[in-house]
Amino acid sequence: MDIEFYLKEKRKFIEGEIEKYLKESHPHLLFSAFEYSLKAGKRFRPLLVLASAEICGEDQRKVMPTALGVEMIHNFSLIHDDLPCMDNDDFRRGRPTCHKQFGETHALLTGDGLLIAGFEMIAKNSEIEGIKPESVVRCLKLIAQSVGIMGMTGGQVMDINFQTGRTITEEELLELHRKKTGALIKASCMAGAILTSRSEEEISALAVYGENIGLTFQIVDDLLDMDEDKKNISFPWIFGLERSRKMAEESTQKAIESLRIFGDSGESLIQLAKFLLNRKA
Amino acid sequence: MDIEFYLKEKRKFIEGEIEKYLKESHPHLLFSAFEYSLKAGKRFRPLLVLASAEICGEDQRKVMPTALGVEMIHNFSLIHDDLPCMDNDDFRRGRPTCHKQFGETHALLTGDGLLIAGFEMIAKNSEIEGIKPESVVRCLKLIAQSVGIMGMTGGQVMDINFQTGRTITEEELLELHRKKTGALIKASCMAGAILTSRSEEEISALAVYGENIGLTFQIVDDLLDMDEDKKNISFPWIFGLERSRKMAEESTQKAIESLRIFGDSGESLIQLAKFLLNRKA
Repeated sequence: MDIEFYLKEKRKFIEGEIEKYLKESHPHLLFSAFEYSLKAGKRFRPLLVLASAEICGEDQRKVMPTALGVEMIHNFSLIHDDLPCMDNDDFRRGRPTCHKQFGETHALLTGDGLLIAGFEMIAKNSEIEGIKPESVVRCLKLIAQSVGIMGMTGGQVMDINFQTGRTITEEELLELHRKKTGALIKASCMAGAILTSRSEEEISALAVYGENIGLTFQIVDDLLDMDEDKKNISFPWIFGLERSRKMAEESTQKAIESLRIFGDSGESLIQLAKFLLNRKA
Repeated sequence: MDIEFYLKEKRKFIEGEIEKYLKESHPHLLFSAFEYSLKAGKRFRPLLVLASAEICGEDQRKVMPTALGVEMIHNFSLIHDDLPCMDNDDFRRGRPTCHKQFGETHALLTGDGLLIAGFEMIAKNSEIEGIKPESVVRCLKLIAQSVGIMGMTGGQVMDINFQTGRTITEEELLELHRKKTGALIKASCMAGAILTSRSEEEISALAVYGENIGLTFQIVDDLLDMDEDKKNISFPWIFGLERSRKMAEESTQKAIESLRIFGDSGESLIQLAKFLLNRKA
């Protein structure tokens, strides 16, 4: 299987659905900022939602609203993360950040609006035939926890607190990333199986997969960007280059092993795990 | 019925549940700011959730998670509304605003965290016996819409845009408040009936009730605070004193009439509507 082709196809599919969402949404005062934000990105998290439904033998269309919801929530986090009182970044994905483009007030509200729209989309997954409302509720709770104060938002607070503080410990760095980036990646991997009411065994397997590719993803990110700015919250700076590389290899291995239960249909996610380990950008 | 006693009892009950929530929640880095925010307030919106379940003949405990969720979402909106890039307020409820007390970064994240925790709480309402997951999904979707870009967040954008712009028209002022404050009040009134799976007739009656007391609430708020600062987005300044008063009386009347379907059990909400019209603070 050609993983790059697979990823490209999935991305195209997701982007088509985003276009459709934007086209069908009511004209509203933050439309341009919604569009600006949603039209860029790697689509990594929605892709995980779709791919995990597929390796469970389900049609990816069944979980599309949740995939879009997760992407909206991810975009909310980027917009707020870039704000002057946070990382104060001027550029994101090679373009001005949302507040540089639309002003701080509108960026704050665009983030809020995307977060709320994300939960609304996930709830709307119940309108799709064959998806049980109790599965949607479970999935929504999981995603809320993964981005809330015990997940992504909590990771943001740790991040901010550590940027000006003492050197972080290895355990703290692992916790920070487990919360800040890991939790939503893990939840995205589980969402496809939860929504399609798969066995607890399959859901757990995808949880282990998600946890491990999340770690790989972050370590490789840090290895690709060794900027001194991020010194205090970066794997190579805290664990050393060699150990970081080794940890990424080990977590990739664990991710692949967790998929055994899916037999041959696990191939796409196996290839994805390897791709994440070896990516150069 | 003594409405002031009724409101006091309800508030005490809600505050006990908030205490319990805070006590049982994991220790986290924004705990103090969550506590600071959640420990004050009139509890108007959660009260509506409980009261609307009760007039449907249901135990208010059944909808308590949603009542708390709505209060959290309301608190999120206040914290973000007070931020420097929004209204830049130093005081709220007689105390320093969240960003004055904890700094802007933590206030931003506390707002985000409360919004997410609010949706998580609403989803958790499905854990209560007798509440159907499809009702929880419907209720969550409604609340998301009421605070999203077509509701509260959209109203915030209008508010910000109008603060520096031309004089607002009567129609625009009505739309602004229908979105900014009305939509969540209306959704809170409907939530109790939706969660307990009542008839569409009862749900619609509570929608009309909520829409009308929301309008009364806002007009009376504006009449009690005739500050020139708010000149451009205030009922008495746009509609005139006498007309505003008359509108509030009419919407109270409509609210009361909408409750006919509930017979004698509608008494508490009838008294509440009158109380909102005649309040002095």
